[in-house]
Amino acid sequence: MWQRTLSTILVIAATAIPVTAQDWRKQIVDGLDAAAERHGQLSRTIWETAEVGYKETRSSALLRDELRSAGFRIDDGVAGMPTAFVATWGSGTPVIGIMGEFDALPGLSQETVPEQKARVAGAPGHGCGHNLLGVASMAAALAVKAQLEARKLPGTIRYYGTPAEEGGNGKVYMVRAGLFKDADVVLHWHPNDRNIAARASTLAVISAKFRFKGVASHAASAPDKGRSALDAVMVMTHAVDLLREHIPQESRLHYIITRGGLAPNIVPESAEIYLYARHPQIGVLDGIWERILKTAEAGALATGTTMEVELVGSTPELLPNEAMTALLDRNLRDVGGVTYTADERAFAATLQTSFMPGTAREIDEAATIRPPDEPLTLGSTDAADVSWVVPSGWMLAATYVPGTPGHSWQATSCTGGTIGRKGMMVAAKTLALTAMDLLTDPTKVASARASFEKTKGSRVYKSRIPETAAPPLGYRDTK
Amino acid sequence: MWQRTLSTILVIAATAIPVTAQDWRKQIVDGLDAAAERHGQLSRTIWETAEVGYKETRSSALLRDELRSAGFRIDDGVAGMPTAFVATWGSGTPVIGIMGEFDALPGLSQETVPEQKARVAGAPGHGCGHNLLGVASMAAALAVKAQLEARKLPGTIRYYGTPAEEGGNGKVYMVRAGLFKDADVVLHWHPNDRNIAARASTLAVISAKFRFKGVASHAASAPDKGRSALDAVMVMTHAVDLLREHIPQESRLHYIITRGGLAPNIVPESAEIYLYARHPQIGVLDGIWERILKTAEAGALATGTTMEVELVGSTPELLPNEAMTALLDRNLRDVGGVTYTADERAFAATLQTSFMPGTAREIDEAATIRPPDEPLTLGSTDAADVSWVVPSGWMLAATYVPGTPGHSWQATSCTGGTIGRKGMMVAAKTLALTAMDLLTDPTKVASARASFEKTKGSRVYKSRIPETAAPPLGYRDTK
Amino acid sequence: MWQRTLSTILVIAATAIPVTAQDWRKQIVDGLDAAAERHGQLSRTIWETAEVGYKETRSSALLRDELRSAGFRIDDGVAGMPTAFVATWGSGTPVIGIMGEFDALPGLSQETVPEQKARVAGAPGHGCGHNLLGVASMAAALAVKAQLEARKLPGTIRYYGTPAEEGGNGKVYMVRAGLFKDADVVLHWHPNDRNIAARASTLAVISAKFRFKGVASHAASAPDKGRSALDAVMVMTHAVDLLREHIPQESRLHYIITRGGLAPNIVPESAEIYLYARHPQIGVLDGIWERILKTAEAGALATGTTMEVELVGSTPELLPNEAMTALLDRNLRDVGGVTYTADERAFAATLQTSFMPGTAREIDEAATIRPPDEPLTLGSTDAADVSWVVPSGWMLAATYVPGTPGHSWQATSCTGGTIGRKGMMVAAKTLALTAMDLLTDPTKVASARASFEKTKGSRVYKSRIPETAAPPLGYRDTK
Amino acid sequence: MWQRTLSTILVIAATAIPVTAQDWRKQIVDGLDAAAERHGQLSRTIWETAEVGYKETRSSALLRDELRSAGFRIDDGVAGMPTAFVATWGSGTPVIGIMGEFDALPGLSQETVPEQKARVAGAPGHGCGHNLLGVASMAAALAVKAQLEARKLPGTIRYYGTPAEEGGNGKVYMVRAGLFKDADVVLHWHPNDRNIAARASTLAVISAKFRFKGVASHAASAPDKGRSALDAVMVMTHAVDLLREHIPQESRLHYIITRGGLAPNIVPESAEIYLYARHPQIGVLDGIWERILKTAEAGALATGTTMEVELVGSTPELLPNEAMTALLDRNLRDVGGVTYTADERAFAATLQTSFMPGTAREIDEAATIRPPDEPLTLGSTDAADVSWVVPSGWMLAATYVPGTPGHSWQATSCTGGTIGRKGMMVAAKTLALTAMDLLTDPTKVASARASFEKTKGSRVYKSRIPETAAPPLGYRDTK
Repeated sequence: MWQRTLSTILVIAATAIPVTAQDWRKQIVDGLDAAAERHGQLSRTIWETAEVGYKETRSSALLRDELRSAGFRIDDGVAGMPTAFVATWGSGTPVIGIMGEFDALPGLSQETVPEQKARVAGAPGHGCGHNLLGVASMAAALAVKAQLEARKLPGTIRYYGTPAEEGGNGKVYMVRAGLFKDADVVLHWHPNDRNIAARASTLAVISAKFRFKGVASHAASAPDKGRSALDAVMVMTHAVDLLREHIPQESRLHYIITRGGLAPNIVPESAEIYLYARHPQIGVLDGIWERILKTAEAGALATGTTMEVELVGSTPELLPNEAMTALLDRNLRDVGGVTYTADERAFAATLQTSFMPGTAREIDEAATIRPPDEPLTLGSTDAADVSWVVPSGWMLAATYVPGTPGHSWQATSCTGGTIGRKGMMVAAKTLALTAMDLLTDPTKVASARASFEKTKGSRVYKSRIPETAAPPLGYRDTK
Repeated sequence: MWQRTLSTILVIAATAIPVTAQDWRKQIVDGLDAAAERHGQLSRTIWETAEVGYKETRSSALLRDELRSAGFRIDDGVAGMPTAFVATWGSGTPVIGIMGEFDALPGLSQETVPEQKARVAGAPGHGCGHNLLGVASMAAALAVKAQLEARKLPGTIRYYGTPAEEGGNGKVYMVRAGLFKDADVVLHWHPNDRNIAARASTLAVISAKFRFKGVASHAASAPDKGRSALDAVMVMTHAVDLLREHIPQESRLHYIITRGGLAPNIVPESAEIYLYARHPQIGVLDGIWERILKTAEAGALATGTTMEVELVGSTPELLPNEAMTALLDRNLRDVGGVTYTADERAFAATLQTSFMPGTAREIDEAATIRPPDEPLTLGSTDAADVSWVVPSGWMLAATYVPGTPGHSWQATSCTGGTIGRKGMMVAAKTLALTAMDLLTDPTKVASARASFEKTKGSRVYKSRIPETAAPPLGYRDTK
Repeated sequence: MWQRTLSTILVIAATAIPVTAQDWRKQIVDGLDAAAERHGQLSRTIWETAEVGYKETRSSALLRDELRSAGFRIDDGVAGMPTAFVATWGSGTPVIGIMGEFDALPGLSQETVPEQKARVAGAPGHGCGHNLLGVASMAAALAVKAQLEARKLPGTIRYYGTPAEEGGNGKVYMVRAGLFKDADVVLHWHPNDRNIAARASTLAVISAKFRFKGVASHAASAPDKGRSALDAVMVMTHAVDLLREHIPQESRLHYIITRGGLAPNIVPESAEIYLYARHPQIGVLDGIWERILKTAEAGALATGTTMEVELVGSTPELLPNEAMTALLDRNLRDVGGVTYTADERAFAATLQTSFMPGTAREIDEAATIRPPDEPLTLGSTDAADVSWVVPSGWMLAATYVPGTPGHSWQATSCTGGTIGRKGMMVAAKTLALTAMDLLTDPTKVASARASFEKTKGSRVYKSRIPETAAPPLGYRDTK
Repeated sequence: MWQRTLSTILVIAATAIPVTAQDWRKQIVDGLDAAAERHGQLSRTIWETAEVGYKETRSSALLRDELRSAGFRIDDGVAGMPTAFVATWGSGTPVIGIMGEFDALPGLSQETVPEQKARVAGAPGHGCGHNLLGVASMAAALAVKAQLEARKLPGTIRYYGTPAEEGGNGKVYMVRAGLFKDADVVLHWHPNDRNIAARASTLAVISAKFRFKGVASHAASAPDKGRSALDAVMVMTHAVDLLREHIPQESRLHYIITRGGLAPNIVPESAEIYLYARHPQIGVLDGIWERILKTAEAGALATGTTMEVELVGSTPELLPNEAMTALLDRNLRDVGGVTYTADERAFAATLQTSFMPGTAREIDEAATIRPPDEPLTLGSTDAADVSWVVPSGWMLAATYVPGTPGHSWQATSCTGGTIGRKGMMVAAKTLALTAMDLLTDPTKVASARASFEKTKGSRVYKSRIPETAAPPLGYRDTK
């Protein structure tokens, strides 16, 4: 694949890229190709380890060790989170950061086969590909460091090890701790089923656990002496289901029941809902959140129980950055997409038979780069908090078979195998090239800053997570 | 049938009944047999008229006319209810009352055939047999009056025409107006599928309409600008459904949705639930009612709507009366039950095929008299309010095929035909004999009073309907 | 207002419009201004009459009489619908149709005051402004006829009187009857809170009544012998509420409960839901509809009841027409928007205080013309069926105060007053000018046809309403 | 307390009990009093161990060890259940069994204090008092063995160690394995808040886990590609809630949600309900169960998911035994109830302040013996299966403060303290006296057999648990 893409680069380079850059661009790409096997194995190890948010002890350590070996200075356990860290190399400005995540999702354990088969039944799995995410960002940081060192260039490359992206909002606490204050630009990426440096934003989110408390009693001999906390869950969730019709269609409300009673013959004394609400604008979401709180109060009121809310997380919508989108798009097109082998095509074709009817897409799309303006259906990310305090840029790389739903066993099966690794290297290369562009060209940093100021305007960043709240280190515990 | 029963009476009479009574007992029974066809036709006319609560204009008039023709003095439109009346004959004490009802139920129109076939689709029907109820009580009053007149006996016989028993609680307002103050004993009966002078009580009830108000909007183009009153109904009813598990099993909660939106493409601005709550004791029911009010508040709270409650009715549990139960039981056994003709047996057998599996009972049971202690599964009656202010007695007569569910098309088909009429005459005779017993034997009135005082004890009657509330003359209107 | 707009027209006319047209353009506008009071009064009469779908006997007759008086030939009672008609004037080609609607919505009766106050409590009201719709289209047809007659021009102008747009889908049956076969172009419009000749489509819709049948029983004494049809409604609606999360966000599901039980003390034997499902593409909607049918089956299965579906209506998404959008946009800009008097501004300001927070818009927007590409939040229309069989064009005119939700009392209050009438005349003028453009310039008809063929492509129109289904003349009846 | 009771015994003994019995009766009571401290400590150890059904490894071993030390022969791991055992002493007939249970309930961990305070948050607790149950039965068996041994009496005393009574139905598999075939009479008891040898039966029960499977997807970016298994739970549970109104009021339906989704941002692929249904007659329950299965099928149908049922347990209603009730009642009255110390009274008074209003009862009731006919509100027990295959007798002893709801933290706090131990000894003494009565008087065994045959009649025992189903050893696991 590289041969074809290289010729494209040379053509572009001849016209648009400063002559001095041609040299490091090829070295970065070649260097990452050479390290692909090693990085791929690390991603596999983290994939197999599959630790959920704030429990990523081993995954975090693996990444730290790699960076430390390469000479990065490590600050670990930052911002009150044992698995968060910052790894820095170099000195002076600009300071360019790359963020990496490494938490898994509950229950998505899966083998790298194209039919549903758990590695460990009920165990977590990398259905969002954060095993690739953390490693690609690290690989990019290492590649940039190699160039800075070899060329004795000024400037700082930094890796942010950000835990618990899936609901735990690790970055919020890192922002609060001021860890991004001296960064000029921060880069990040996410695994996906396509390659794109998107102009799109993400969804703002607020999440909480709603805990109801009733009165236990023998469910057969004295149900009238009990007050069921599970009944309160039923009333609240029904009200939430009804609420969906009466909020803007771009909103999202989704919940699970994290405590639903202990034994059928005991009237449930305790029950719990874990709920996310999302909307493209945090300001609108605030209003929706007020209404959700009322459904919870109603659940308690209707059933003679009491209710308490534990805010778990919140992140605003991501602030897009025009200049960074353009820069990432150009580099992503230089790098090119993912081409499948015959075996990978066969895997993909089989996997697609498990998709919902009408959702599979052409396998060859993995090899293409989408236009930045393509509309995306997106989730939320705590990278959004970062995007409100420092200029940032992001991209997606095709680590899953086209059409793969996120947070699925299908996604896990891709992120543990060769398809995922190939997409990971697309991201690593694009991020490394972009970081070097920023480190070697002050006008690009200035453009990123200008885009940031323009989009943000006079708006002020303020997390909906109270200043006094500590990171919810136990949010994945079930009691 | 009478032949057989008569011999029984003679045997009993020879031992237990004062000799002077033998004469009027036979005259009452014979007289009512002679009038059976005329009374039956009147019951059929009211059955066909089928007017719902507080709308029984013609039904009430038919009964009044009959009583007026016989020389009764009529007070109509009493207690603020156009269809309520009191008809009185005679003077002096004791004052013995017999209560009659005549309202139909919505939607139960039915031909007198043993398969479901509406006379007028959607129209009301006498699925509770109040067409028989009002006429039997009137027939008894007329029979008693004939005896008082012929024998120039002192004492007063009175007919209470009580409207809207099915949810409108006409008797509550008649009690409040003091219309029972000078009565010594009041008798009543109810159609059923069995003959019994029951010691059982009835269920206390509170009923109300819960009205929710939201904000209308175009359901497709702006559902987020609407607040659905129907959503509030959904939340409240679900909470009520859950509540059933956590109240005593003898309670009853049942509701209908009387307003559920105007057009699907308009977010419902208004919606309404009409709900009954019941329990064997009004004191316990008060506590359940408090919890129901909370479910309604929760419905509004959860959906951003407002709620108002209109209390429609309430009646306590009926106070049983030992002495009157014994007296009615003896007279009912004298009169005997209902024997079917071959045609009626065939009708009954066909009708029973439409019953829920396992609920049909032996047809011959209609001819038997049940023991007073038999447990009954009962509804509520506003006769209960009367039972708290004056000694009263009551009985059931077999006007429906054994096993017929109340408030069903099957019940309507029985109450319009010969089976219903036969049961009606059992009640008429029993009530007339009992009233004469009371009018001719002061010790029986004293016993009824003593039983009343003993059962009531120090408890004070107080309707849950506020003193200031007028009769809900429009409670059957749908808006 | 006209003075200002007229000068604009003259400027435009001097450059872009054939010289011969200048003459009739002014005459049409002047003529409609002269007739505005008369047309306004007719719209008010229909507004006060407020007849729901298929019951528009008087409203339809008022429009027919007016057209007949002007010399149109009337075919009434067409396509099996007593209130549908076709009025034709002239002969030969092209045949240009204008569609008019005149049905009201249940329960939206309202005075022309800026606070909620029903004219007749519970009565229908013109909350969608079809009183204006039918009259503006008629006014345009009369204005065109006057020009054709005066100038002895060839061609045919036709008015389609289309009943029951709100859910009854009158136009589907008129399409089926072939009434649009010889039409070259058909025009229509709709009242709204803005002026726009929109390129946007509408939502495809399928609607049905789901009827459940259970077993009646006394709700207190034998609830276990009953099978509640209302329970089935509760299960189905809850499932529908849950379904909303798992269909594309542009879909719409909304329902009302049209039968919710007869009396609380009877287990409901019969219950009914009236539901609409919508999506921007009828093909996708088919799949959603299959899932809704399953929720209904589940409702019956879970409750031991039976279910039947009555398909009430269906219409696909509207096919936009590039050429017609451009032509209507030009004429709409010539005509100009709606300027309020001081009194109307005061009315509007007061009315806006009743809107949901954040939804009111600048009053002056009523005077502006929106760009055709503006995204709209739309409902559905059976004009869509017409758009699949004949080239058609449509527009919106500002007949409600900016920000007014459709299908609301606020909309009714606008459509009965001067604000509504002014918007109505904007539509009348624009439609008349456009019809004359088409009648006098064959290239415009050809362009409309070309746009139609291009957008439709090889797709085939097929209504989801079975060929054998008669118009649901009783769909607004509640039983 | 014993002094008073003893004199009563002497009076009774002088008239009704064979003279030879007077000797062993006193020895049994004295012996058990002497061993009370030791037995109490064992009950406390099991209370602290608190192992749930089929996990009672240590609790079962403690009891076995005690019995083995006393010379009983032990068969352990019987009927395919590691914690089930049979301990036998003696030989020949009659064979008298006493059953003991020892499983705890999830989540009811509690200190022996009168306010809610978990020993270990979320851990199991003896909220049903099976720590007392197993020990009292063992104590009785040891006391009987001592008499048989000392007096060289023929006959066999047997202890059945029956695991997982709370939903796991250990006794069903022991019946199936034929372990009760040679038993003449089997005794059992249960902790309660009163002392009674009840004539009442228990509720038949069927329990199952309903597992739904859907399709996972990203809940924000692709909810329409997911099919929520939790939605199926919501539909099924709502239908179950509605069903409660339409089954006999003595029925019970209660459920918990044992799997409610893994993470809010994943559409739940898997969800599970654990449900019990009960009714006083297994035959009626069969019909209710059919309807519950339909609600589960409806849940899947409505949501596009699939469903599977795992039957966890079933037990019929207990067959009362006239003769055994009379015998146990007499012995229970000999033994007498529980008298509280001042400290225990204070504990009880404080505990009662945590009860639902109106449910506390007089503390002194613990010292009284209730009449056998008193109506009880009961749960279910797998002792019922035993009661269908061998004559059996049972009783309740007051181990909780009067008014304590079963399966509550209040019950746990009582069963770990002195109040529980006192009640336990009431049971131990009564069971031992009764077993000795049976071992020494063949007519009593014959009477028990006659009562058994009479009540059972021609009915045939058949568990609703399939013959092929193994014990659900993992039913308390949450996955």
